Amino acid sequence: MRKMSRKPPSREPIPAALRLDGRSLAGLQEQIRQRMIDAILDGLFASGRKLPSTRALAQHLGVARNTVVLAFQQLAADGYIIARERSGLFVNEEMVKGRRAISRVGGRTEASHSTVWSDKIKGGVTETDAQRVPPDWHKYPFPFLEGRFDPALFPVDEWREASRLASRASEIQHWVSDPGEADDPLLIREICTKVLPRRGIHAQPGEILITAGARQGLHLVAEIFADGASTVALEEPGNPAMLALLKRRGARLVHQPVDDNGLIVDDALNGCGLVYTTPSHQRPTGVVMSLARREQLLARAHSSDFIVIEDDFECESSYQDDALPALRGMPGGERVIYVANLSRVLAPGLRLGYIVAPPDVIVEARRLRTLLTRHPPLNNQRTAAYFISLGHYDATMLRIGRELHARLIALRDGLNHYLHQSIAIAPVRAGTTIWVEGPRDLDARDIARAAEARGVLIEPVSAYYAAGRPPAHIFRMGVTGITGTRIRSGVETLAETIKEMADGSTPRLDMARREWLRGDDLRRAMSGATLLYRTVYGEPCTIELRRDGRMIGRSGFANEDRDEGRWWIEDDLWCRQWSDWAYGETSTFLTRILGDRIQWFSQDGKLRDSAIIVTAKE
Amino acid sequence: MRKMSRKPPSREPIPAALRLDGRSLAGLQEQIRQRMIDAILDGLFASGRKLPSTRALAQHLGVARNTVVLAFQQLAADGYIIARERSGLFVNEEMVKGRRAISRVGGRTEASHSTVWSDKIKGGVTETDAQRVPPDWHKYPFPFLEGRFDPALFPVDEWREASRLASRASEIQHWVSDPGEADDPLLIREICTKVLPRRGIHAQPGEILITAGARQGLHLVAEIFADGASTVALEEPGNPAMLALLKRRGARLVHQPVDDNGLIVDDALNGCGLVYTTPSHQRPTGVVMSLARREQLLARAHSSDFIVIEDDFECESSYQDDALPALRGMPGGERVIYVANLSRVLAPGLRLGYIVAPPDVIVEARRLRTLLTRHPPLNNQRTAAYFISLGHYDATMLRIGRELHARLIALRDGLNHYLHQSIAIAPVRAGTTIWVEGPRDLDARDIARAAEARGVLIEPVSAYYAAGRPPAHIFRMGVTGITGTRIRSGVETLAETIKEMADGSTPRLDMARREWLRGDDLRRAMSGATLLYRTVYGEPCTIELRRDGRMIGRSGFANEDRDEGRWWIEDDLWCRQWSDWAYGETSTFLTRILGDRIQWFSQDGKLRDSAIIVTAKE
Repeated sequence: MRKMSRKPPSREPIPAALRLDGRSLAGLQEQIRQRMIDAILDGLFASGRKLPSTRALAQHLGVARNTVVLAFQQLAADGYIIARERSGLFVNEEMVKGRRAISRVGGRTEASHSTVWSDKIKGGVTETDAQRVPPDWHKYPFPFLEGRFDPALFPVDEWREASRLASRASEIQHWVSDPGEADDPLLIREICTKVLPRRGIHAQPGEILITAGARQGLHLVAEIFADGASTVALEEPGNPAMLALLKRRGARLVHQPVDDNGLIVDDALNGCGLVYTTPSHQRPTGVVMSLARREQLLARAHSSDFIVIEDDFECESSYQDDALPALRGMPGGERVIYVANLSRVLAPGLRLGYIVAPPDVIVEARRLRTLLTRHPPLNNQRTAAYFISLGHYDATMLRIGRELHARLIALRDGLNHYLHQSIAIAPVRAGTTIWVEGPRDLDARDIARAAEARGVLIEPVSAYYAAGRPPAHIFRMGVTGITGTRIRSGVETLAETIKEMADGSTPRLDMARREWLRGDDLRRAMSGATLLYRTVYGEPCTIELRRDGRMIGRSGFANEDRDEGRWWIEDDLWCRQWSDWAYGETSTFLTRILGDRIQWFSQDGKLRDSAIIVTAKE
Repeated sequence: MRKMSRKPPSREPIPAALRLDGRSLAGLQEQIRQRMIDAILDGLFASGRKLPSTRALAQHLGVARNTVVLAFQQLAADGYIIARERSGLFVNEEMVKGRRAISRVGGRTEASHSTVWSDKIKGGVTETDAQRVPPDWHKYPFPFLEGRFDPALFPVDEWREASRLASRASEIQHWVSDPGEADDPLLIREICTKVLPRRGIHAQPGEILITAGARQGLHLVAEIFADGASTVALEEPGNPAMLALLKRRGARLVHQPVDDNGLIVDDALNGCGLVYTTPSHQRPTGVVMSLARREQLLARAHSSDFIVIEDDFECESSYQDDALPALRGMPGGERVIYVANLSRVLAPGLRLGYIVAPPDVIVEARRLRTLLTRHPPLNNQRTAAYFISLGHYDATMLRIGRELHARLIALRDGLNHYLHQSIAIAPVRAGTTIWVEGPRDLDARDIARAAEARGVLIEPVSAYYAAGRPPAHIFRMGVTGITGTRIRSGVETLAETIKEMADGSTPRLDMARREWLRGDDLRRAMSGATLLYRTVYGEPCTIELRRDGRMIGRSGFANEDRDEGRWWIEDDLWCRQWSDWAYGETSTFLTRILGDRIQWFSQDGKLRDSAIIVTAKE
């Protein structure tokens, strides 16, 4: 090999940290830009020294030189690097200056916060278990959770088309002009002409306000119509979020029971100023309010002078059955405030809902929305307008309605087949959930815990009861989050769990039969796998075992607790060490995999813990 | 001409309403789909009858047949139309069924709402003029409004690149899985590593919560830390939105004055649990809190045991000067909750802000955010993450910071040149507004009204004063919403307005000199023009005079009042007739155009009203 001529000393070496991630979803050029910006801002290039040549960098990164050249051109256009004639490329000091100057002045001292803050927090939010699911719920093999949609249902292509149309330069000019309080007129028009008529509602633009999901709609209504002097009726069992919102307002609450026709309408509603109901599919029981009961409710609203809050939260499933019209669309409906999501399946992306109410109420709600959050993002409003106007909304709802109905039937059939001796379910008509009465001697919360450890997520219903004693043996299973083909094995696993709970023995490893994973089998199973379980504190926890030996841990409902560490294999032992967790000490385990589950044992064969294991795709 | 053979009688005629809009921003194919869906849902095609042929429709619409064929294919894929073999295309009855069935059941009776609702609305939001601007403010020639950004500043290409990256199918799968309470980890990382270090803040992921703009951040903080038992200090003059939020919580308020170094720190703060401040550029005066005052405030926070809410609302302009570090980043900053927008210029699109606070507070704020609105849209969170990681955030802020500084200097110079005898301004250091002391004998609200009628939008400051008597002669001028090249003429027009107010005569038309627009000149001026003015009720109003003789009117801060009508020219008269407005009667006027202004007169030359006129682009 010939000796290379020495590089001029003024040129910066390539920082070792500057590497590309082969698995990253970003393109090569974008990755180079991102990494270079990180390196510039982190001060990895000394000021006044030439940057590495594009040729050297391309070689170092293993990419075409032109890719680096294009990335550098964009960096220059953005002002991160500057070209000095006949000398080469340099970091733009102006870009780094502000950052460094401030870093020098800053540097606050760390101190214990707990005493400063804890006594100053007023009336915190009480958690309701019904609202909390592990952030990685969709990685569990059998998530029978209501209202969480599996990503496969999301209309990716249709959404991208609408998003692309709303992102054209001419459209951007429309929605960046910041019209203050106004919503996108196109979206309002599409809701009036295409979405609401399906629910039997004929509304004028001035009767509609766009909200950040139905949740904000409920919040605004609670703020406007309830206070310490109000009496409000809710369904029992009912929506815990509405309960919490009304409690914050200090309203007196009437917990009104639900029967097979929906919310019971009787004299208990007299004296209420507000009645909250979920007529399409009662939340949580799934009961559809009958037409007679709807008429009864509206007649009572008139005679007793109360307002009805109609939460039509499940718009997808109104496409799957002979849907009754919304209360707001019926004679007498002028006393109704209609609250809806544009669609729950679109919620993660668009987070849009709306209220339909008389113009006076909309004016009030708009003022309040402006004060609290201002309007929902206008790019998403315009995207939603296109999504509806191109017919994707109707088509998607129809498709999802069909799919959910098929899943519901599959769940009913599975429960009948595997569990008909120990459980009872109501006749399945529509909706997306089944209300299950489990064995009377088992607590549904215990079943849920045991089932989760085997990858089955179900929902005990106690959180939906606000008054009296919740029935301990009832749970709910939903089909929005689980693929149809997995429903049967999910129910089968649940049935096994319930059966095992009757026996109640703790698994031990049979040391004589050496029934644990060994050597290469163990390595193959663990490499790239994701483990999902609950910590002893009851927090959801996800552990990623990277192929390169790194281990990433995230714990908590918002992934708020994180740690990193290393894992490795020693003979038949799975070894791991966190930076902070478990005191940063090394732990070694024997492991066993049973279907979706992994169990780990101390070396004397005692079960230490178990998790759902999602093995890496090859 | 040869006779055409008769079409088979079963085929539907083409509805007259099915026309394309040549000026629409949507492509032809999309327009055809939109129009066809409208027609299908409106029942314009009778059921069981063949749809018009693609050839006939293409001819009718004047487009290539293939365009219609492609649109029809998509309509078929979406389920709107179905092909029956050897018979042609038909409307899919399943798609229309639900809609028609409900329309039959529905049909609520219209009734007077006012009595039903008016007595049930609790504690409404009090409007503050400072927050209300006409929705079409950006069409005014001289909008000196603070905090409204002209669309030209929006980083269109950079935003589209980030949006495109976040919309890739693989990325969509990431953010549609609905992680419950968690924010996008990529966005959190970018804020920690790229945005906050510029403000001297070093935060861990668990110390950050994403909010729907800074506004939601302030709302969450007010809900968590203030109630009827709290005492909270605010700047006087100060942010009216924070005032309104704290009033809703029933907190006792201390209105603490501001001097040239920012919020005054003295014994009046003792006994407060919470102190709200805008140190970077005080809102509304623009004063920068000095380093000494910052240290004083933090020392007092420690000795008097209060929490500081730091509203860093103006992040763009911290790039333009030697910015001081944020309070949160200084020694003692652990008592500070930092609230910011990701950027005000990105607000219309992304509507994202964040809070930096100790983990315990973030947990509390996250619970509350989940209850009230759930998380901000995840597609926008991912877009923002890309926007920052590709370096666009820094580059955009730097560019905008420079531009705003140049505009501020232009405004200062203009005021010095045209108004130095009648006004006084503070030395201009940074920020985006100038605090103007007008002539002491004029009320700034009168100046603002008169200036608006000439196209100049300025802001009287009385709405920022909560205690005592606001200074009537002070107003504020901002540069975020007005192009640099228009600043000089804007100031000149303002100077003329102020001069005219001293004279105070009402314009009349000189009938003898026939100084009105005539015939074709009149038609040319009005055709396609947009008129902007205030109604006699003080509501902003926009009138579009379409070239085809239609007239569209929108009135109100949220465009909530709308009407349509016709306009035409008869000799020298401009004639107009609304459907509802002005009793639906015909009005005729003589008109005169003076620069950006149009005045209309009765036929005896008396002024009836005037407006800003934006003439159509050729």
